[in-house]
Amino acid sequence: MSRWLAYHGDSIYLDELIYQPEHSLIQQSVESNKKRTIRVNGDGFGLGWYSHRALPGYYHDILPAWGDENLRSLAHHISSHRFMAHIRHSTGSQVSRVNCHPFVLDNWMFLHNGHIGGFDQVKFTLVRQLTEELFLKRVGTTDSELIFLMMIKNGLRVDPIAAINQTLYEIEQAMEDKSITEPLTTSLCISDGEQFWVVRYSSDHQPPPVFLQRSSNKTIIASEPLDYSDSWQKIPRQTITHIVNNHCTQYDLIID
Amino acid sequence: MSRWLAYHGDSIYLDELIYQPEHSLIQQSVESNKKRTIRVNGDGFGLGWYSHRALPGYYHDILPAWGDENLRSLAHHISSHRFMAHIRHSTGSQVSRVNCHPFVLDNWMFLHNGHIGGFDQVKFTLVRQLTEELFLKRVGTTDSELIFLMMIKNGLRVDPIAAINQTLYEIEQAMEDKSITEPLTTSLCISDGEQFWVVRYSSDHQPPPVFLQRSSNKTIIASEPLDYSDSWQKIPRQTITHIVNNHCTQYDLIID
Amino acid sequence: MSRWLAYHGDSIYLDELIYQPEHSLIQQSVESNKKRTIRVNGDGFGLGWYSHRALPGYYHDILPAWGDENLRSLAHHISSHRFMAHIRHSTGSQVSRVNCHPFVLDNWMFLHNGHIGGFDQVKFTLVRQLTEELFLKRVGTTDSELIFLMMIKNGLRVDPIAAINQTLYEIEQAMEDKSITEPLTTSLCISDGEQFWVVRYSSDHQPPPVFLQRSSNKTIIASEPLDYSDSWQKIPRQTITHIVNNHCTQYDLIID
Amino acid sequence: MSRWLAYHGDSIYLDELIYQPEHSLIQQSVESNKKRTIRVNGDGFGLGWYSHRALPGYYHDILPAWGDENLRSLAHHISSHRFMAHIRHSTGSQVSRVNCHPFVLDNWMFLHNGHIGGFDQVKFTLVRQLTEELFLKRVGTTDSELIFLMMIKNGLRVDPIAAINQTLYEIEQAMEDKSITEPLTTSLCISDGEQFWVVRYSSDHQPPPVFLQRSSNKTIIASEPLDYSDSWQKIPRQTITHIVNNHCTQYDLIID
Repeated sequence: MSRWLAYHGDSIYLDELIYQPEHSLIQQSVESNKKRTIRVNGDGFGLGWYSHRALPGYYHDILPAWGDENLRSLAHHISSHRFMAHIRHSTGSQVSRVNCHPFVLDNWMFLHNGHIGGFDQVKFTLVRQLTEELFLKRVGTTDSELIFLMMIKNGLRVDPIAAINQTLYEIEQAMEDKSITEPLTTSLCISDGEQFWVVRYSSDHQPPPVFLQRSSNKTIIASEPLDYSDSWQKIPRQTITHIVNNHCTQYDLIID
Repeated sequence: MSRWLAYHGDSIYLDELIYQPEHSLIQQSVESNKKRTIRVNGDGFGLGWYSHRALPGYYHDILPAWGDENLRSLAHHISSHRFMAHIRHSTGSQVSRVNCHPFVLDNWMFLHNGHIGGFDQVKFTLVRQLTEELFLKRVGTTDSELIFLMMIKNGLRVDPIAAINQTLYEIEQAMEDKSITEPLTTSLCISDGEQFWVVRYSSDHQPPPVFLQRSSNKTIIASEPLDYSDSWQKIPRQTITHIVNNHCTQYDLIID
Repeated sequence: MSRWLAYHGDSIYLDELIYQPEHSLIQQSVESNKKRTIRVNGDGFGLGWYSHRALPGYYHDILPAWGDENLRSLAHHISSHRFMAHIRHSTGSQVSRVNCHPFVLDNWMFLHNGHIGGFDQVKFTLVRQLTEELFLKRVGTTDSELIFLMMIKNGLRVDPIAAINQTLYEIEQAMEDKSITEPLTTSLCISDGEQFWVVRYSSDHQPPPVFLQRSSNKTIIASEPLDYSDSWQKIPRQTITHIVNNHCTQYDLIID
Repeated sequence: MSRWLAYHGDSIYLDELIYQPEHSLIQQSVESNKKRTIRVNGDGFGLGWYSHRALPGYYHDILPAWGDENLRSLAHHISSHRFMAHIRHSTGSQVSRVNCHPFVLDNWMFLHNGHIGGFDQVKFTLVRQLTEELFLKRVGTTDSELIFLMMIKNGLRVDPIAAINQTLYEIEQAMEDKSITEPLTTSLCISDGEQFWVVRYSSDHQPPPVFLQRSSNKTIIASEPLDYSDSWQKIPRQTITHIVNNHCTQYDLIID
């Protein structure tokens, strides 16, 4: 499982969330969990942040995050009011920069934990559903980037809730056509620079957890709480959470 | 322009061709040529070699070849009777290992210099012509890998001459449909572990050069002569050269 | 703790030990152990092997071993009668190729797990004890490479047992001069191409384990058994094990 | 020869100087010059910038600058009133991040083009002149980083002009002791966050060029003019140029 976080609020230096918390993303990159054998999140990492420039900035690299001196320096010097960070645990695709999250397209940013069950059996079908324009934007080989491009195709720019539902539906359909029993699992975070949409969905109703911490001047969304306080709410499964300014609305996912 | 070489003959250590010649591939990676401004071949490199194992070995990296200590050591220690080496000059695709030549599929190996004119305009069409099986083998984003997979689709394993002709024809057709005037340019080298097929083709009849040096116990094919002797023959343009054992046959390319 | 193995015997392909065993080095690179929080061995890796060439080959890279396609291909195609492999867990030095084990100097090869307690306090003193010739051979920043160069200085080429004892003594002395209480811990493997010297030493008599598996045609030495058979003997602590051909002699380490 | 630039003035995005000029640093990284055979500046690159944080930020990588997507994004999003950029052409040291310029120590930043003639003959002597504290700060293997640390040792923080003179003198002395005839060549740029010191010096009075472009609100210093305007002044050889605010003072170097 990959690990990620997203932030919106007063402008802060990125290391305030990535390095400093008790249970920071960097700490998570090197930890094992309670299961006996677990791959760590050492298959690359990425940052994406909104700034005063028209389009968001990003930094992707293939080294484990824990040892990257550049990441330490950049996170210490880049400040942002809205950013995402992701440490990757590959579910099969190559370890390369183009496969690192968050994916950025124009003003949109997207990150993902989980995977499409039996991806190799539906990849051909799903990629072919992309328009030519979106097909050409695909630079990597992950299911994650493909989910992002499918959402754009399905109208993410116009009606995000519908586009997310439609995309998960199309993936489930393609999987059903191939009688795939391994589930589609997703925790997703999407932003257009102004809003967040957070998705927690799995075919088997066991999606990866996502936690939310809110206060008057900031919102933090993360795959695991960044500290051991009780200020973290778990986002309900099978929902889309829409966060704009400090306002938060939850929608049930209706896939079938 | 990328640079490359291919060898067949008595088993030799790879550095004998990659490092030692007067005008070695490593030397070519750092040289300018007579034109005033020229990008160098510093966008990664690759080796592929046949050995006693069933499938060929490979080594791809994204650093410039000239400074890579691993390459120096591997080329000094790996010996082979048939191998290829390539130093990349990207024509736009990302610098990543999956975009480095030679591409390997089962017992087949493929490298390329040149590019598909207006590639972004025909990429969608051409990728969609791949079968699902071959589509799933595509791990990078280059026109080169796509040409290789199209040749497989067109029967490279069964009738290589026909498959090569058909592939170049399909690419030219797709380019014509989009009224692309920039030419398709290729120097290609392909092997199945027993034979070579070398292609020199360009829409505008100005393909990149390929040179051949043959003696009783070896054949060297290269994008530039590796020394300043007069033992290098230039392969005629618009041809496929088929080399098996020490026997060499040339076929005119008939695209239209 | 880093993980490593060394092999001598009939020539085998490297992947036979690095990838294939039940508890292979690659498996170890991604596993957690029973402790709750453990850094994995993802700070680079290296191979060194003796071949028909005068000097050994090597391959070092900074990616985690588990995801490196080059390593998979090289280990599948390179065969050797004597080789070492190491997956690194940095104790502070940079993640860079020059800090990856095994270190190679002429016909000598060296790898290490453990570290010099309070290294930063004795580094200056110890580096200054190197001769100019050996000082210039130092390309990285690790304590491990320094231990290797000190052993060369202390006569590793002439009297290895004495050189190993003397080096550990000099390090302990330097640590004592600075009142360092953190122990010197080492599991070491050294070869000249004909013999192995394996060291298990720690100031606090708790050195990292080393295991030995021997049969008539091969010797495997490893930081952890590669399978769950009972054929692995634990090497006694505070000893040097000298292995030549299939003959094995153990010497007590006498540091004080 | 490496290439570099330094800037002070109104805060600008880094790409304004690194990518946008007609003859930008990125353009220089891929160009040949008039000489027939020239290595390009593809052995890594680096950025260093002063920001609102106490210590400067940096970003070093080993890929050629021309193909690095991270560099493009970071240079587009990071703004600074004082920064340096360097594209490396190695004169022998490894291609690794720790060997990339600018070197940063506390609030000091340093970059260099040129090299110490016969460096391997004087390296031992010069490194041993470092204090323990500075010796421990040395993470790479270049002559450049060593020159920087020697200047710190010689009082760069207190009397920069004297420290620069003394350092060049000590290097020349060490070279003379070894009868080295190859010259010491340097173009250097140093900053403490408030001032620049630019050095153009060579034993043979043929130092690499350095150019200066000044206006009321900015100063650009570069190894080559960034455009073809006539606004670039060549800095005289064998001088130290001290630039504070918009005031510029030149000192003759007195080495002997």
